[in-house]
Amino acid sequence: MTVVSVEHALAGRIPAGGEVTVRGWVRTRRDSKAGLSFVNVSDGSCFAPIQVVAPAALPNYESEVKHLTAGCSVIATGTLVPSQGQGQAFEIQASAVEVTGWVEDPETYPIQPKAHSLEFLREVAHLRPRTNLFGAVTRIRHCLAQAVHRFFHERGFYWISTPIITTSDAEGAGQMFRVSTLDLANLPRGKDGAVDFSRDFFGKETFLTVSGQLNVEGYCLALSKVYTFGPTFRAENSNTTRHLAEFWMIEPEIAFADLAADADLAEDFLKYLFRAVLDERADDMAFIAERVQKDAVTRLEAFINAPFERIDYSDAIGLLQKAGKKFEFPVEWGLDLQTEHERWLTEEHVGRPVVVMNYPEHIKAFYMRLNDDGRTVAAMDVLAPGIGEIIGGSQREERLDVLDARMAQFGLDPEHYGWYRDLRRYGGVPHAGFGLGFERLVVYVCGLSNIRDAIPYPRAPGNAEF
Amino acid sequence: MTVVSVEHALAGRIPAGGEVTVRGWVRTRRDSKAGLSFVNVSDGSCFAPIQVVAPAALPNYESEVKHLTAGCSVIATGTLVPSQGQGQAFEIQASAVEVTGWVEDPETYPIQPKAHSLEFLREVAHLRPRTNLFGAVTRIRHCLAQAVHRFFHERGFYWISTPIITTSDAEGAGQMFRVSTLDLANLPRGKDGAVDFSRDFFGKETFLTVSGQLNVEGYCLALSKVYTFGPTFRAENSNTTRHLAEFWMIEPEIAFADLAADADLAEDFLKYLFRAVLDERADDMAFIAERVQKDAVTRLEAFINAPFERIDYSDAIGLLQKAGKKFEFPVEWGLDLQTEHERWLTEEHVGRPVVVMNYPEHIKAFYMRLNDDGRTVAAMDVLAPGIGEIIGGSQREERLDVLDARMAQFGLDPEHYGWYRDLRRYGGVPHAGFGLGFERLVVYVCGLSNIRDAIPYPRAPGNAEF
Repeated sequence: MTVVSVEHALAGRIPAGGEVTVRGWVRTRRDSKAGLSFVNVSDGSCFAPIQVVAPAALPNYESEVKHLTAGCSVIATGTLVPSQGQGQAFEIQASAVEVTGWVEDPETYPIQPKAHSLEFLREVAHLRPRTNLFGAVTRIRHCLAQAVHRFFHERGFYWISTPIITTSDAEGAGQMFRVSTLDLANLPRGKDGAVDFSRDFFGKETFLTVSGQLNVEGYCLALSKVYTFGPTFRAENSNTTRHLAEFWMIEPEIAFADLAADADLAEDFLKYLFRAVLDERADDMAFIAERVQKDAVTRLEAFINAPFERIDYSDAIGLLQKAGKKFEFPVEWGLDLQTEHERWLTEEHVGRPVVVMNYPEHIKAFYMRLNDDGRTVAAMDVLAPGIGEIIGGSQREERLDVLDARMAQFGLDPEHYGWYRDLRRYGGVPHAGFGLGFERLVVYVCGLSNIRDAIPYPRAPGNAEF
Repeated sequence: MTVVSVEHALAGRIPAGGEVTVRGWVRTRRDSKAGLSFVNVSDGSCFAPIQVVAPAALPNYESEVKHLTAGCSVIATGTLVPSQGQGQAFEIQASAVEVTGWVEDPETYPIQPKAHSLEFLREVAHLRPRTNLFGAVTRIRHCLAQAVHRFFHERGFYWISTPIITTSDAEGAGQMFRVSTLDLANLPRGKDGAVDFSRDFFGKETFLTVSGQLNVEGYCLALSKVYTFGPTFRAENSNTTRHLAEFWMIEPEIAFADLAADADLAEDFLKYLFRAVLDERADDMAFIAERVQKDAVTRLEAFINAPFERIDYSDAIGLLQKAGKKFEFPVEWGLDLQTEHERWLTEEHVGRPVVVMNYPEHIKAFYMRLNDDGRTVAAMDVLAPGIGEIIGGSQREERLDVLDARMAQFGLDPEHYGWYRDLRRYGGVPHAGFGLGFERLVVYVCGLSNIRDAIPYPRAPGNAEF
């Protein structure tokens, strides 16, 4: 027997007329009056299941085949033939259907062949990959992740895994999770009564990282082009549909580069990813377009074909003030842009992706490079129609004296950043980079409205299952 | 000006005679009596630096070029010509050398052009990628990571990111790090005085994951072929050269598969990775062979060309008992194999990689499939000459009644594993997988003796820098 994936069988990569074996889980079973059963079997290798035509002559037809329900696992062997039915190119005329696993109490099996609410599916996250939607999301997520690595590899970037457990709060970006092995029932304390972290695992108070950027800069100033792709954490108690406590982040960093080069890289990068999804996951994207987000495919095509607009922050403020539109949040030079402003810019004003550049220095992080005007920094946000901000980046401050002044302004202790200052003391160069949340990308491509559906095992504050 | 990487310039991918610009960091400078300086510039794109020949006619020759020291950053423009010197195919006859960053106090710059101890370099981890060794290790590490993703992608596996913060201790594998947002100065307590974790971020006591295996099984039983590649954590206070608190793990999981299929996958996988390193990083591997591990290249070649031996654990015990060799640890059926036993088997007895299969059930984890003999489980360890165990795997117990009995035997609460039991209740199938530590692979390929040199930012218990 030749075991084949459903993907290969349906794609015509197996000669028709040959004997094949497929293995997977039953999606549906339909019995015909002619004494046949049509069993749709999915192995997750592609969106579609394959139709297995099981004749009554099978020795276990009455005893087993006619009792198959959604979720049962089977090994089906037979002849691969062009299908007479609609919607599939090939089917299997079965000579054997072996049942490898039954479903205990089919009535209560959570994944019935019907539509489920996303809320319900989050409660059975270990089974939701068996649904059409989460099979598609998982394959698209994989496709995006592969494309991330491939994009950078083809361009000579090296992957760096920066520390997950860290002593540093990269940008004062919200509450952090503490990591500790101290015994909570018996905390060591110093003479002043405070917890003595010198007795903790690393001899200091440690947290889960919020960003690998500062660490990756050290590798950038040796290997020129590097990127991170790893988990980051925010202990924000905002139970919104847009934030995860644990999410994967991508952070490229390039040496001898300014903000313009950074924006160019961001544009090339996003277009490459979306092209990969359209090329490699057409089946899953067709389902997304049919059931989740009508323009899922066309908006990615438009994204790929449109040159990004570049707008100075100060000009963007002027445009917003002259928009003649009532915004909820104020529009004023010096204030950050809100989602409503970003979406007006990219969706209504420009009608394609926009890079807003050079933000006021006091609303951005200490490490961003101060422009010659003294009041803006070389920061950028990439805004996309349908989602708003998708990438944030900047040129980094490479001048030690300016960096020190900025750190003082932000109340940061230069002692703590000794190694980061070294990167400026020893052969510093202009360099730049950006960061984007991987799940936010999945949300955008898959048209999801809740980011918990973009990660394999979703959780919320107060819900720690898994 | 055409900016090119040093890699492309040296590899002959740029037409000789053209004008090019390279950007990077000075490794060495040598002044000739003829009034020229030879400046070796590295941009980290490959092992070798490129030689920039700077003539005295440069306007900044006396004022700047003759003051260049290791670590200074430069942008050099000139004609790419075949080199007269030894050891490089091409060099640049410079028409301009712009200095973009000086080294503050060159005398104390940590990365001098000489050999440094690995201990010292761990203290300046942000600068050590500028050394020959850590440049090579970083590129090899990248090459291995890319090959991991490519191997699985080409074979239809999907990448799954399993939870980092978890409530579950996958295999009772050593001490875990607690993750919490509770205020240590003011811990919430229940009536019994115990810490009230219901007030913690996720409403339960949570830890950093030690393995993604249990979680990835849920995706395996829907998508058939999946893998994880993400960080895992062990709070072991063993400050050894073989353990990291934070390390990356690779865990493939395949459905409709037994232990034999698992061993075949492990063999194909390792050979694919080592072939990729030999093909893509010949420059770095040549350096490793010259300076770190004499047989670094030949042992990988031997590894690729040798079929793995498969030995039953019980037979391995017999072989060890008849070896006529004095071991430090006892050899007896029922005891685990120690490194000395593993290395004797793979290095002295077989002389190539060995898969030891079917271990006594009481020394392996609860989820491993009980064999028909009732006293062994379908577990395997892959042993390699020069390192010992490099992969551990097993077929998973798919029979719910046997799993429940095993969990009872190990004192595990079935309530806590409700979702894991579901995978057996609903269309369970034989499935198998393995895990390997990514840094351990880097240690092996690069011939390192301390695993802290295989991760970008090394740390030890009591040392939390970064």
